Amino acid sequence: MRIARLGRPGQEIPVVLDGDRVLDLRGVTPDVTPEFLEHGLNALDLTTLPELPDAAGLRFGPPITRPTAVVCVGMNYAKHAAESGAEPPTEPVVFLKHPNTVVGPDDPVTIPRGSTMTDWEVELGVVIGKRTSYLDSPADAAAHIAGYVLVNDVSERELQLHTSGGQWSKGKCAPTFTPVGPWLVTGDALDPAAVRLRSRVGGEPRQDSSTVDLIFSVPEVLYRLSQFMTLEPGDLILTGTPEGVALSGRFPYLAAGDVVELEGEGLGKQRQTMAAEGTR
Amino acid sequence: MRIARLGRPGQEIPVVLDGDRVLDLRGVTPDVTPEFLEHGLNALDLTTLPELPDAAGLRFGPPITRPTAVVCVGMNYAKHAAESGAEPPTEPVVFLKHPNTVVGPDDPVTIPRGSTMTDWEVELGVVIGKRTSYLDSPADAAAHIAGYVLVNDVSERELQLHTSGGQWSKGKCAPTFTPVGPWLVTGDALDPAAVRLRSRVGGEPRQDSSTVDLIFSVPEVLYRLSQFMTLEPGDLILTGTPEGVALSGRFPYLAAGDVVELEGEGLGKQRQTMAAEGTR
Repeated sequence: MRIARLGRPGQEIPVVLDGDRVLDLRGVTPDVTPEFLEHGLNALDLTTLPELPDAAGLRFGPPITRPTAVVCVGMNYAKHAAESGAEPPTEPVVFLKHPNTVVGPDDPVTIPRGSTMTDWEVELGVVIGKRTSYLDSPADAAAHIAGYVLVNDVSERELQLHTSGGQWSKGKCAPTFTPVGPWLVTGDALDPAAVRLRSRVGGEPRQDSSTVDLIFSVPEVLYRLSQFMTLEPGDLILTGTPEGVALSGRFPYLAAGDVVELEGEGLGKQRQTMAAEGTR
Repeated sequence: MRIARLGRPGQEIPVVLDGDRVLDLRGVTPDVTPEFLEHGLNALDLTTLPELPDAAGLRFGPPITRPTAVVCVGMNYAKHAAESGAEPPTEPVVFLKHPNTVVGPDDPVTIPRGSTMTDWEVELGVVIGKRTSYLDSPADAAAHIAGYVLVNDVSERELQLHTSGGQWSKGKCAPTFTPVGPWLVTGDALDPAAVRLRSRVGGEPRQDSSTVDLIFSVPEVLYRLSQFMTLEPGDLILTGTPEGVALSGRFPYLAAGDVVELEGEGLGKQRQTMAAEGTR
């Protein structure tokens, strides 16, 4: 099942995308809230939901309301670690993004003032459906997952690496830096073990990998995170990006007007036009 | 003016502490929400507020509802940088904590399972009152501050430093790791430039410094953060801890049963008993 939120920013309507039909969830929940992810999602009866009229052409918002936290696992693909000049980690590397960076999948992304090193990162995102603390094993992770989303973990490399004192969050928190969506696919409908992830800039290929290359798999990530933080319904976990970003030196960084396209197998497509700060 | 939240976890009553009187804010706002911090706080008329009966003995909760983000500035005191084996930073070092770590000032703090390196960090916290983005200068910061709070930025050093791949958030996000309060003192009632901050463990002194030693002052922190992230009403900014933590090697790390006391000039006192995970 695929869940989305359609409409203008702040006025999105929660829906189910059921084949070509768009079903209105507002009779069941006011929004795709943590409560809905925990209790409503599994109990949905699609036969009771009315179709949303005039859904065609509506903007896709992020498919979940603002997360209480955006938790990221860095350097989780060996080839991306290599292109970043780092060794593959032996323990998950964890940082957080400000939750107010989350935007819709096709919303413009703003290059921070003065930035010359704004970069893309296609990722598989995991949305938590149930409080997750001290899991006994990775096998327990699946029951805590509401679903999966496509994410662009937009990154400003000068802030992340050169003026950060080594703490990456500084280059990860600029406004619009976390496009999410277009939809959440529920945990029963996607196997996170082999999801092809691709990105393009100006129509030219950049990243093209699969989560099969993850150093720490999705169940392993949740198991390990749960040993030192409690994850909550609605939390968004970014599982890392594969090789093929500008940081590698193989491609130019993003400039205003550039079009970034992302695609995730079963997760849909994103398309962002880069904007200069102050011009939106 | 001092704002607090009194009562059991999840059922706190918003109040004003007016000398010895406790004034009930529920006629004005359901809680100390971002909306209240932005619009309600400056418009308060204390003469219209009833006293809260039976306030004595009620637990202090955190004086704000859960922040949308907890943004931390690390290594912001030169002597703490030195005791941590680092050079003083030339740019603010920024990381985030999971907002679900926030607890009341006297709530028990849980030592994570297996941890032998849990540490204290007394800090001045800044609560944002107004959307803060691309400030023109540090002089513009004051108008964006709702108030100040005392915070213990509890830290697990093995997770933060030894198994983190260098990203500190991993050791900062365990449950109960951010005691806040007892109260928020409004921005007009405290000068953040010289706030004495102290901590004790088992009654013995640990930290005893002042924000006069901050490398990046409060206005400077907000000005600089605003260049690469948007801060929102209710966001909590931790400004860094001074020297005197266990990481220095001069004091033992915390063990179950230890009592940590913190004090901030004008900010009140905290008292936490350390608990072993699983025993609460």
